[in-house]
Amino acid sequence: MHVALIGVTGYAGTTLFQLLSTHPAVDTIHCYGHDLTAAVPLATAVPALRFLAPAAQLEPYAPETVMADNDAVFFATSAGVTSQLATPYLAAQFPVIDLSGDFRLHDPATYTAWYHRPAASADALAQAYYGLAEFGDAADHPYIANPGCYATATLLGLAPLIQHHLIDPQTLVVDAKSGTSGAGKTLSEMTHFSNTNEDVQLYKVNEHQHIPEIVQQLHAWDPTITSLQFTTTLIPVSRGILSTIYAKATPTQAAAVSAAFTTTYADQPWVQYLGPALPTLKTVVGSNYCAIGTRYNPTTHTLMVASVIDNLIKGAGGQAIQNFNQYFGLPATAGLPALVTMP
Amino acid sequence: MHVALIGVTGYAGTTLFQLLSTHPAVDTIHCYGHDLTAAVPLATAVPALRFLAPAAQLEPYAPETVMADNDAVFFATSAGVTSQLATPYLAAQFPVIDLSGDFRLHDPATYTAWYHRPAASADALAQAYYGLAEFGDAADHPYIANPGCYATATLLGLAPLIQHHLIDPQTLVVDAKSGTSGAGKTLSEMTHFSNTNEDVQLYKVNEHQHIPEIVQQLHAWDPTITSLQFTTTLIPVSRGILSTIYAKATPTQAAAVSAAFTTTYADQPWVQYLGPALPTLKTVVGSNYCAIGTRYNPTTHTLMVASVIDNLIKGAGGQAIQNFNQYFGLPATAGLPALVTMP
Amino acid sequence: MHVALIGVTGYAGTTLFQLLSTHPAVDTIHCYGHDLTAAVPLATAVPALRFLAPAAQLEPYAPETVMADNDAVFFATSAGVTSQLATPYLAAQFPVIDLSGDFRLHDPATYTAWYHRPAASADALAQAYYGLAEFGDAADHPYIANPGCYATATLLGLAPLIQHHLIDPQTLVVDAKSGTSGAGKTLSEMTHFSNTNEDVQLYKVNEHQHIPEIVQQLHAWDPTITSLQFTTTLIPVSRGILSTIYAKATPTQAAAVSAAFTTTYADQPWVQYLGPALPTLKTVVGSNYCAIGTRYNPTTHTLMVASVIDNLIKGAGGQAIQNFNQYFGLPATAGLPALVTMP
Amino acid sequence: MHVALIGVTGYAGTTLFQLLSTHPAVDTIHCYGHDLTAAVPLATAVPALRFLAPAAQLEPYAPETVMADNDAVFFATSAGVTSQLATPYLAAQFPVIDLSGDFRLHDPATYTAWYHRPAASADALAQAYYGLAEFGDAADHPYIANPGCYATATLLGLAPLIQHHLIDPQTLVVDAKSGTSGAGKTLSEMTHFSNTNEDVQLYKVNEHQHIPEIVQQLHAWDPTITSLQFTTTLIPVSRGILSTIYAKATPTQAAAVSAAFTTTYADQPWVQYLGPALPTLKTVVGSNYCAIGTRYNPTTHTLMVASVIDNLIKGAGGQAIQNFNQYFGLPATAGLPALVTMP
Repeated sequence: MHVALIGVTGYAGTTLFQLLSTHPAVDTIHCYGHDLTAAVPLATAVPALRFLAPAAQLEPYAPETVMADNDAVFFATSAGVTSQLATPYLAAQFPVIDLSGDFRLHDPATYTAWYHRPAASADALAQAYYGLAEFGDAADHPYIANPGCYATATLLGLAPLIQHHLIDPQTLVVDAKSGTSGAGKTLSEMTHFSNTNEDVQLYKVNEHQHIPEIVQQLHAWDPTITSLQFTTTLIPVSRGILSTIYAKATPTQAAAVSAAFTTTYADQPWVQYLGPALPTLKTVVGSNYCAIGTRYNPTTHTLMVASVIDNLIKGAGGQAIQNFNQYFGLPATAGLPALVTMP
Repeated sequence: MHVALIGVTGYAGTTLFQLLSTHPAVDTIHCYGHDLTAAVPLATAVPALRFLAPAAQLEPYAPETVMADNDAVFFATSAGVTSQLATPYLAAQFPVIDLSGDFRLHDPATYTAWYHRPAASADALAQAYYGLAEFGDAADHPYIANPGCYATATLLGLAPLIQHHLIDPQTLVVDAKSGTSGAGKTLSEMTHFSNTNEDVQLYKVNEHQHIPEIVQQLHAWDPTITSLQFTTTLIPVSRGILSTIYAKATPTQAAAVSAAFTTTYADQPWVQYLGPALPTLKTVVGSNYCAIGTRYNPTTHTLMVASVIDNLIKGAGGQAIQNFNQYFGLPATAGLPALVTMP
Repeated sequence: MHVALIGVTGYAGTTLFQLLSTHPAVDTIHCYGHDLTAAVPLATAVPALRFLAPAAQLEPYAPETVMADNDAVFFATSAGVTSQLATPYLAAQFPVIDLSGDFRLHDPATYTAWYHRPAASADALAQAYYGLAEFGDAADHPYIANPGCYATATLLGLAPLIQHHLIDPQTLVVDAKSGTSGAGKTLSEMTHFSNTNEDVQLYKVNEHQHIPEIVQQLHAWDPTITSLQFTTTLIPVSRGILSTIYAKATPTQAAAVSAAFTTTYADQPWVQYLGPALPTLKTVVGSNYCAIGTRYNPTTHTLMVASVIDNLIKGAGGQAIQNFNQYFGLPATAGLPALVTMP
Repeated sequence: MHVALIGVTGYAGTTLFQLLSTHPAVDTIHCYGHDLTAAVPLATAVPALRFLAPAAQLEPYAPETVMADNDAVFFATSAGVTSQLATPYLAAQFPVIDLSGDFRLHDPATYTAWYHRPAASADALAQAYYGLAEFGDAADHPYIANPGCYATATLLGLAPLIQHHLIDPQTLVVDAKSGTSGAGKTLSEMTHFSNTNEDVQLYKVNEHQHIPEIVQQLHAWDPTITSLQFTTTLIPVSRGILSTIYAKATPTQAAAVSAAFTTTYADQPWVQYLGPALPTLKTVVGSNYCAIGTRYNPTTHTLMVASVIDNLIKGAGGQAIQNFNQYFGLPATAGLPALVTMP
């Protein structure tokens, strides 16, 4: 197969290129720059790929070329790009895996409220499929909106609890921590080393753009859920998300937690439930795994969930490949890394 | 004045030595090693002090010497030491500032349950004063139990809310993050650089020994409080604690939060309320400040408090000096650092 | 093929297990603990492997079993182990890839002087082959001593210069920097996070045990070389070595440097010469690449070489697989990672 | 005394403000912004100073105001500022401590070659004094050019050797490592956390703008010295410089090294010679100390010097205060921090 990749210069795009380069079903990766007018060497644009693909080119983008020369296209672009570029693919039902947030939300007004920019049309959004890989099948959905990193860690940690009504959703608190690669390559005060290092920075508290997709999905599982306390903290590591989740649970509910996680993820190779063992970032970083542990505090009736992922793999490029595999009927583990970075 | 210091080799003890060396009322610091049989050069025992006190000695410990040669004694020792050594000081009403946890809890059984070791006698414990500096006056209390670092950050962030009944205490969740110096100098897997670096590790969830002193103090302010969800996460920085606190608050309660913090800390030089601005570790590390910000989520009715301290200063040696100043009627800012580490 | 691995619990051993698990010619990895008396689950002994090999066992070690059940054995053990265990393999000419330092030096006295422990016999040492992968062929050498990490980075950076006489070897200075994984899993003051973090520590200056193997190899290329200024600095990163090398070169010599590197590594997939572009750790970490840049200072006549590797891959497990591939006539890139960790 | 500070928003300027705020001879610090048209609250411009100086203002700059209201002025500005602003102060012989590089070099052409911008006039430069604090007396020099951070660490490590002819200067190699605060607050790819973290980056090799002031000073001590191999490496720490220096020394020269350091710095409170003990960044960071260790390799006849400083204190604001103290005849330790950051 031949695949197209738009946005290879970003961290998620580069990671996706690396993963696709080892995918057994992928012969060629064509990279296109949506703002290029002439080809440039990929090794110049992305030095991290210079040994892996020394002769590759980053080509100017044209949707006809993308569709003519490839079997599918991955967009690892910033917010606001695919809302502009999606039309020809939707019209052609050409398979798109969109890693940006542009097609994750069903409601254009919600998108605009959280992303502070124009949304794709309601019609276009209606054709998109939210590809939380363990909770759907992308097979019949040519336009796949790949979930956000915070959303992936949080939803995988919450799904069995919400679906089995094992917590009081009105008491839900998410205290999520992320490394800096989630903030991308754009320079900022917050990610200036002298600022980031030796610090822990709260940011976008209750304002992060991944919140509405979490609420939308939780709402789909339990219509009583319409909002969320969601705190985001930047920690001085390069990769990884830890989503620490709290909610009240009765002792009866708590007693059912382990079975709910075990059954929910019984056939899912990429989600590992550890019971009361609490995962750390290093449990998964480098791989496509999500690892989850739970603890119950019987004196306060609080259930705590710790869910960890590599934000660039399970939270971006890896899940994109899970959706790609589903769409094309490939094995669930094809092209996905199982080796954690150690140490 | 002459002061004695036991436990100078630990991080809190060394920090305390540094602070005392700049204290305008302190002429001499005598260091004693409670397990020494002969004097050793302080510069050998604590290389970080070699330039500051090149000729100082670490002397063998004897309570008579401590009391004869000094006006007060600081114990920066591990748990289990002052419970053994306190008797002569209590008998003599000699001023002690005890940075360990041994005299913070009123109830010996609670101590044993959380510290997994024998407690001091109930009689002895009854003579100790819990020196949360902004909420008491150590003037008449010769035996001062200096609060723990997590307890300090958390109690200062909660006090106005509990005292003014501005949150529902049954919904309280504390997600506290600490740098590694809180774990001390003892080598451990968890603080091995290759493990700590690039990771975020949950530990002692609901089992940290600072929990009972927090609950004891909250209970004193609001007797309905008898337990706490308290999560501790080790982050890859050397110094600093961020205590992120969540609880439900009605809109009416939330509207009173700012005034409660402002009035509570109006005359307190070392607690800075920032309103909706959220402090980071760098807001305070290097200084004796506690900085606090609050945010209210009107859709979920959740109040979030972010409280930060330098764990070795406000959370240990600095607060010890606040108590020392109170006991001896010295100015509240004497000997305390106001300069934050930047960057 | 079936392969045996002794020492899987160390960082190099775990890395090697990961690499072998993706090697196309390896069907089974049998892990043995040289100090075990009963089997233990590998996932317990090495949590980093729990998802990769959830059912694997770490078996007690017996050389007969190793040889009966496997086609080759990797020893990723500490110094002093293979000097004790090598005899039956040498006798049987059974293929061994030894990642420890025990068989790298030809002279037992030199080994004892630098490793401070008894050496293997001169007879045994004479049967070992020093497997600097780009400068030999392991095909006919059943006992392969895999080079040390500092040695690999330094020798690859020096080889073209020494072989082509392009520097004055009497002026050679190596200022090498390493991350903490090179120091292994053993807890130490130097690798305690609160000490390592925010510091840069010189250690084992002119005393590092990799120095004699560097000198031995340089001497083989140029017999005038008999010693080396070699400085080792621990930096607060988990992985990677930067060897910064200085020596005097005449302008004529300097003019020949680029061609020497280019021709030396023309057919070597794992060494990348970047010319005047200077590599950083991130240029290679995560992969088996060594990347090298050079700069000449015409005013001081100093040539500087910067050579970087991932100490656990090219400096340990990856080079071990290069040697394994050579011995068994497999492709030079089989089982070796080409993806760099980014970011 | 009243002092003026221009450039308080940079790291060196903020550090200098902190130090001046504790200086016993300084009553008032007036901050001026050289590009301001109206006053702004200092706490807004520099949040790190909000607790220390909550009511202070950053005022528009005018040289008449500076001279009328102050006894001295500190410029902690970027290159290119004081070359424009110095004239009135030089004319008035008003005391200036200039932390920028604009007045360190005697030769305008050299300045332009290394700084890539116009120099101050040769006349103006001739009135400046290079204030390497341990090797001069600023008493009669109203215009003091404060040395650069790399220059300070390197010159203090080299001075006794050059002055006593204990090394062969033609063999000199400096491999200097710096934390990121040396690169300032300006955002850059190199100091983007995701790039800096877990990496070690060579930069400006033989091109760093501190090289000519080092050569100028070495040349003043030994006219045979006209150039230098000087390598700069960015390491992932916030503060600190380690200058590792190599040169050939005969055994006779080497035998005189210890005495040379000891006598040179006998009366200098801020330089500590440790003999063969090698300092690390933590030996000094947080304080105004420079710590130096030396090792001799008798087989290669190489002397190694390790010299460490806090780049923002001894390498900037602290040395500025040393020069201020000298100019005004104040004690050598007034206002200077002796407490190292630990841990």
